[in-house]
Amino acid sequence: MIAETTRALPRLDETGRAALFTQARTANSFADTPVTEAELREIWELARWAPTGANTQPLRVLYIGRGEARMRLVKHMDDGNKAKTEAAPAVAVLALDPRFHEHMSTLLPFKPELGDVLAANEELRTSTGQFNSALQAGYFILAVRALGLAAGPMGGFDAAGVDAEFFSEEQWRSILVVNIGHPGENPWFDRLPRLDSADIVRWA
Amino acid sequence: MIAETTRALPRLDETGRAALFTQARTANSFADTPVTEAELREIWELARWAPTGANTQPLRVLYIGRGEARMRLVKHMDDGNKAKTEAAPAVAVLALDPRFHEHMSTLLPFKPELGDVLAANEELRTSTGQFNSALQAGYFILAVRALGLAAGPMGGFDAAGVDAEFFSEEQWRSILVVNIGHPGENPWFDRLPRLDSADIVRWA
Repeated sequence: MIAETTRALPRLDETGRAALFTQARTANSFADTPVTEAELREIWELARWAPTGANTQPLRVLYIGRGEARMRLVKHMDDGNKAKTEAAPAVAVLALDPRFHEHMSTLLPFKPELGDVLAANEELRTSTGQFNSALQAGYFILAVRALGLAAGPMGGFDAAGVDAEFFSEEQWRSILVVNIGHPGENPWFDRLPRLDSADIVRWA
Repeated sequence: MIAETTRALPRLDETGRAALFTQARTANSFADTPVTEAELREIWELARWAPTGANTQPLRVLYIGRGEARMRLVKHMDDGNKAKTEAAPAVAVLALDPRFHEHMSTLLPFKPELGDVLAANEELRTSTGQFNSALQAGYFILAVRALGLAAGPMGGFDAAGVDAEFFSEEQWRSILVVNIGHPGENPWFDRLPRLDSADIVRWA
């Protein structure tokens, strides 16, 4: 019985559940309160530990400060996203590194041949990278919230334009842009409906 | 100043960060302690609130109990995953519903035409479904951990076989299998390395 107790895992209290899931909302306006570089680094210090398939970790993060770089991003955002992206204290461009497999001998030392398998199989490499980078984008959004910050994830932008603008050297491929900050005036739209659990969850 | 304070968001304390990110580990063995139906329902009651693009919510969940149904799943798992999938107290098959767009008039009432756009554009529909279901799989894994349960996500299975076995009616497409339970004896492998933050995070 003592051994069972020792293995008991920590869990989220109501505040933690509210912060990440039940009360958290996508922010559409932000206060002027800055987001510090330390906070932005801390987001990744949390998100990096959550699991990926075969430990592939294909997600990359570009933080874009205010000023000239921000305007280079804003011009590629859909019109409905331009103003809030320009105003956000911090913005992250989440991207897939299509060469993630080159790290496999480090990341999966007991199966280093997986890097060669992925290098030789473009379909497997693409699907693995796309799935796991999206999985990590989910972790990233919740890690933003874990720090008491509001996230504003947006898929509405010209990905090819963003990639040419920022990733011509690395060849990363942008998958999501996330505004980050403290909520401003009237930051929340009405919460959109969720599907009934009965439509989602089945039992066998 | 009062207004600023009012808008302060809750955040995770150290226990919460440990539960979801910094100390949580993928479990490879489970105690006999059962996972209740109430706990499995509660996982979705958390995960359902995290955001998806255009509120599409394409992820579906099939929970598979012990017994005959479990063995129908185990036969489609890769050899290295069969024993732990058979032994886990609970197992979730996470799947994409390729007809997610049929719900858009409910889910995005101010832009119901998006359902028609998605219906007419297979490439957009596929990429939207794949990205957002993977994003939700990330939320699901962290929601399992939020309840003090250990998750064992696995990509190693015959997805076409699982789909034919369980989803011939719904036409869902399995994307991830997640073992769920309380950790058993020697549940953790050594933690695999993470890429240096300097290789992940860039600044502009």
